[in-house]
Amino acid sequence: MGSVSDLSGSVCLVTGGLGFIGSNMARALAVAGAEVRVIDSLVPQHGGDRRNLENLDATLVVRESGIDDERTVTELLDGVDVVFNIAGQVSHHESMTDPARDLDLNVRSQLAFLETVRRSRSDAVVVHTSTRQVYGRPRYLPVDEDHPAVPRDINGVNKLAGEFYHRLYGTVHGIRTVSLRLTNVYGPRQCLRRNGLGFLPVFVRRVLRGETLEVFGDGSQRRDCVHVDDVVEVLAAAALRSRENRLPPGDFLNLGHSESLSLLEIADIMCEVAASGSTTTLVPWPEGLDLIDIGDFAGDYTKVRNTLDWKPSIDFRSGVESTIDFYRRSPWYL
Amino acid sequence: MGSVSDLSGSVCLVTGGLGFIGSNMARALAVAGAEVRVIDSLVPQHGGDRRNLENLDATLVVRESGIDDERTVTELLDGVDVVFNIAGQVSHHESMTDPARDLDLNVRSQLAFLETVRRSRSDAVVVHTSTRQVYGRPRYLPVDEDHPAVPRDINGVNKLAGEFYHRLYGTVHGIRTVSLRLTNVYGPRQCLRRNGLGFLPVFVRRVLRGETLEVFGDGSQRRDCVHVDDVVEVLAAAALRSRENRLPPGDFLNLGHSESLSLLEIADIMCEVAASGSTTTLVPWPEGLDLIDIGDFAGDYTKVRNTLDWKPSIDFRSGVESTIDFYRRSPWYL
Repeated sequence: MGSVSDLSGSVCLVTGGLGFIGSNMARALAVAGAEVRVIDSLVPQHGGDRRNLENLDATLVVRESGIDDERTVTELLDGVDVVFNIAGQVSHHESMTDPARDLDLNVRSQLAFLETVRRSRSDAVVVHTSTRQVYGRPRYLPVDEDHPAVPRDINGVNKLAGEFYHRLYGTVHGIRTVSLRLTNVYGPRQCLRRNGLGFLPVFVRRVLRGETLEVFGDGSQRRDCVHVDDVVEVLAAAALRSRENRLPPGDFLNLGHSESLSLLEIADIMCEVAASGSTTTLVPWPEGLDLIDIGDFAGDYTKVRNTLDWKPSIDFRSGVESTIDFYRRSPWYL
Repeated sequence: MGSVSDLSGSVCLVTGGLGFIGSNMARALAVAGAEVRVIDSLVPQHGGDRRNLENLDATLVVRESGIDDERTVTELLDGVDVVFNIAGQVSHHESMTDPARDLDLNVRSQLAFLETVRRSRSDAVVVHTSTRQVYGRPRYLPVDEDHPAVPRDINGVNKLAGEFYHRLYGTVHGIRTVSLRLTNVYGPRQCLRRNGLGFLPVFVRRVLRGETLEVFGDGSQRRDCVHVDDVVEVLAAAALRSRENRLPPGDFLNLGHSESLSLLEIADIMCEVAASGSTTTLVPWPEGLDLIDIGDFAGDYTKVRNTLDWKPSIDFRSGVESTIDFYRRSPWYL
């Protein structure tokens, strides 16, 4: 497979590049010797923070702007080889309480961005981060790419629309787009202070503080978790494969880890690794959240393995170890 | 099954009620003795026209406004029993040339409308017209409701998002929504003058004028067509069934006709019925349209038949006969 180091010398634009996955992507590209440009609107409720790009021995262009800003995006796209389109609203809960805002960020802005790419840089490769949330409640496990997409919340509907746009700009307009449907991602540079960005950053925050981990329901619900370093590598591999015209424009692939764990196992591993006195407790589902919950999830990752010759290199326990270690050395995240 | 006459005495709001399906719905409800309110934004490129509600021995409230106008919609929803939510942008082609506009009308406006319903009239039944376009290019025929939804154009993506919103406002918020995925609809009060509203009104216009019917490709592509009078009846049946709480909130059903015809057969029947000297000719696909075409379509209508005890009563030839007759008596449509 291609690696992020193979993008040395290329010009890359990272949307949402001050956020969790985006900043890890931007840093890895910069370290690899790519020319990196970042656009991020630093939406207050999101996870973006300029400090995510600090302590880096490289120069990045960073513009604070929405991806729907045609003039800024057009400037940033000049000469770009690869776009890593990672920007988005990720909170399922907030999408239900403020659906119009989620729509604006995940649908309207994505469409405006793709239109700008089509008009000003249609030969760029566009690697887009979608989510396994688009599948909704699985009808069978493991969930492969043929599984019907029937989202359970507004965020899932809107992310799916954004992904479909990427597909159509591939199949109809010929732009080399590829979408990765990400499972739960964890690792350094995730916003730990806010709720609503998934359960993993909440768990990390609580074990760092020695607080009790609350697991909803009976804790048997299954998830798979992938470390952000693995995500960075596979996004790079997808970019390289697209650049060689070896992926059909508009393709989409599941991206996750074959290691399936229950929420209780995930919580217990975090408590053990942190060794901060945290323990786990079961609590009933909060009102409303159960209605948008998807039950067990396990992804089928055959396609990404075969297409990109990729598999994750970091198992959950060692990933949590390095993650806890990172945050203990970077206390501002708390 | 329930019939539109069973809605006598109920208070109904019809969105897009000056357009093709909407005006037929509004008229049938008014004739049946319902109190009918209509909201229509009369978007210039669409098919809405105030004359669609003329020559009707009943009084309807008609407001010219977008369904995203919270104040107007709130007023109109006061005391409403059933909403027939029919408003929308329908042109596949225009959705590709002006995707932002399609998004504004089919996604943002629909979400704003549902939020207003949730806030001010959450016990109303909402019957929503979706489209078989959400399925994209069929993987198997006939297409049932379990067929994956992978739209081939922006309009399909956006209509699917609007449908998913209706589903979530049912499953999460408990509003009694139901979406009907409509196949090609024809009949009286369709805008004939514009292109981009489907091939059927173009064919009708051309046979009325004695012009040649142009069929794209080899003409073998299969479609099923349903008369708007049948659509009105099944929308009413869905409303009645929902009002009796006999449909799960957020349900969705295919709606079409078991009579499968090729485009060439459809064109030939129209030429024969009109007897105006029109003939049929095959022409190559226009550039771009082939990329968003879905190939053959045939729907599986088992669910609507079993759930609503409904089947269409009008075969294509007799439906075309009465349609041609209608437009000859109403020449302003040309």
